Amino acid sequence: MDLDFIKKLKKPADTKIVLLVMDGLGGLPRESDNLTELEVAYTPNLDYLASCSICGLQQSVGAGITPGSGPGHLSLFGYDPIKYQVGRGVLAALGINFELRQQDVAARGNFCIIDENNRVLDRRAGRISSEKNKEFCRLLRDIDLPEVDIFIETVKEHRFLLVLRGEGLSGNLMDTDPQEIGKEPYQPRALSSGAEKTADLIKLFVDRAYELLRDHHPANMVLMRGFSQKPNLPSIEEIFGLKSAAIAAYPMYRGIAKLLGMQILGTEKKIENEFSTLEDKWNDFDFFYMHIKESDSAGEDGDFNRKVATIEEVDRQIPRLINLNPDCIIITGDHSTPSLLKYHSWHPVPVLLHSKYCRTDNVKRFGERSCITGGLGPRFPAVDLMPLALANVKRLEKFGA
Amino acid sequence: MDLDFIKKLKKPADTKIVLLVMDGLGGLPRESDNLTELEVAYTPNLDYLASCSICGLQQSVGAGITPGSGPGHLSLFGYDPIKYQVGRGVLAALGINFELRQQDVAARGNFCIIDENNRVLDRRAGRISSEKNKEFCRLLRDIDLPEVDIFIETVKEHRFLLVLRGEGLSGNLMDTDPQEIGKEPYQPRALSSGAEKTADLIKLFVDRAYELLRDHHPANMVLMRGFSQKPNLPSIEEIFGLKSAAIAAYPMYRGIAKLLGMQILGTEKKIENEFSTLEDKWNDFDFFYMHIKESDSAGEDGDFNRKVATIEEVDRQIPRLINLNPDCIIITGDHSTPSLLKYHSWHPVPVLLHSKYCRTDNVKRFGERSCITGGLGPRFPAVDLMPLALANVKRLEKFGA
Repeated sequence: MDLDFIKKLKKPADTKIVLLVMDGLGGLPRESDNLTELEVAYTPNLDYLASCSICGLQQSVGAGITPGSGPGHLSLFGYDPIKYQVGRGVLAALGINFELRQQDVAARGNFCIIDENNRVLDRRAGRISSEKNKEFCRLLRDIDLPEVDIFIETVKEHRFLLVLRGEGLSGNLMDTDPQEIGKEPYQPRALSSGAEKTADLIKLFVDRAYELLRDHHPANMVLMRGFSQKPNLPSIEEIFGLKSAAIAAYPMYRGIAKLLGMQILGTEKKIENEFSTLEDKWNDFDFFYMHIKESDSAGEDGDFNRKVATIEEVDRQIPRLINLNPDCIIITGDHSTPSLLKYHSWHPVPVLLHSKYCRTDNVKRFGERSCITGGLGPRFPAVDLMPLALANVKRLEKFGA
Repeated sequence: MDLDFIKKLKKPADTKIVLLVMDGLGGLPRESDNLTELEVAYTPNLDYLASCSICGLQQSVGAGITPGSGPGHLSLFGYDPIKYQVGRGVLAALGINFELRQQDVAARGNFCIIDENNRVLDRRAGRISSEKNKEFCRLLRDIDLPEVDIFIETVKEHRFLLVLRGEGLSGNLMDTDPQEIGKEPYQPRALSSGAEKTADLIKLFVDRAYELLRDHHPANMVLMRGFSQKPNLPSIEEIFGLKSAAIAAYPMYRGIAKLLGMQILGTEKKIENEFSTLEDKWNDFDFFYMHIKESDSAGEDGDFNRKVATIEEVDRQIPRLINLNPDCIIITGDHSTPSLLKYHSWHPVPVLLHSKYCRTDNVKRFGERSCITGGLGPRFPAVDLMPLALANVKRLEKFGA
């Protein structure tokens, strides 16, 4: 649903919504018993909630599309992830807690290997260590560019962040990363006339980077992509009329929440501490976004059992959430991360929406296959969850007479 | 589906479709036995039909969006309710059987209370009686405006209808109703240059209304909204090639049907009489829209049992419908009106579509939860029902070679 349409229908109410995101929640069945991580997990509390919720499976972008964390989260917050794109550079900055200013241009860099003919041999330089990355970043910090400040920060392994700060910059540039082995890196190129100055600066940067790195190992060059500036997203308050807070331990998720105007609550990484933060701040906000990272990390590590254990750990905290008596609870993930695949996937994600007025279905168990027959259906658009939550807490006017 | 697309595919056939709308059909479970109105009701005939139909739940506008009667019905007739909006003023006119002409501007008025600082104290003046409303309307009929005729009619309680008739009028005006207590009414304002004359006239009207009402109780002012002109909607015949008739006892629904070019058949409010009208006129039309109001009224009154009784009363008439042997029957509501909420709601509405070629599913009972697993799914777009009905009566050509 168009955000402007929702915006016009919003109305105030003294009600609270909690969106609990278990990152990478959805999974795939393991061979031994044909059960997924969530199906294996002992989750009496999630199952209880499912039995008095409307359930289903949700998808962010479309069938077959694997969302990154950015689009996955924007969808859950009701923002069409195709219309509202947050550049890779900006996401990288958010992910390491780099304080981007409004006019900054951020880009994601890879340390890579090129051969003597300037052709890419390895786009990730064999996934160099973060230590090695820091060493290379120190080298690159020797680079000066005319009229702008330049920041170079290690992200992780082969990935680093480049930020240019100054007047008249634009993120509308082509990637230099050709995304293919055997090709030459692309020359920095402006995609609009306003971006030519930035393209020239990036060309200077890339040339100097090569001079500094060419005799080094295991990486000897940089590939840049996702040039972008902080987007101007309408805030959660503006669209939905909700005073909102984020309880998330990882910078990337705190960053996305901040882009949408949420207040960021201090919390530690332990799952039970996130629930303590929720309890402490319960009276101060209308909408709480809680983010659990560990389910995704376990999935990316291919660690089926650790993902099961994480889900069970969250389940044990659910009574604390229920005791707060929220008017609406949504529990889901931002995408699937099956341990079998060790990566984000396109599979729709189990979702439950609980409220006094949700109209329960016949689902009794929170799982990938039990939710197929839920009232939200097996392909519920993630962007519709927020409007539905607003309706359930009586924060939406009727449309038309 | 775009109406122009459907229009090109339509083809004639000697077949009949009946769309039976039980207003506000969808409900929510009551606490005692966790069953909805429709689930409690004894409906052997609807259940029989469901068992040889394709079933599901349909929604008009989108997840979480509560449709008014206008959008709810337009969707059922296949018209995108966001694209084809019928103004509140026009709907008010339709609702009291006021014969709007093509250039008339209609607005919905509220009798309200403002304080000495011109701030709204009560937008509905405590929902004054319709009697009091009539008295105030008689006062307002003293108002003369230059070059136009003016009509003022009681709708119900605090609501009245204002119609201006003359040359060069436009409905493109801002509401004067600020929709909030403590704010001043907005000044009448044109939203396009063509509407300035009308804005001036409304300003005169509002000023004069205040002069006439200021010393009265319990209302002393008017708030105007939904300025609008009769929309030019393509007719059901033009789009679907159907000679269509409406069997509806209430003016609002007859009015909407008339906007779409349906012939309005005389009928009384008794449900069995609507079915008699259907039998009497069976040979004269291709498409019958039947409207049952009482299920919605009972829901709005919070009267669970009366809603159950209404559904059962309709069920008893279903054999008469089946005996006519229509080529396609659709039974649904224009929105949900759970007795629990006493108001329209956003919940999707049970729907069954019966025809010889519908491809039945496994649903054996017509109800909110039984229909979730039906062949139409739990979120079928209401606007797609008419094209599907046309297909089922062989009135749609193949698309493409």
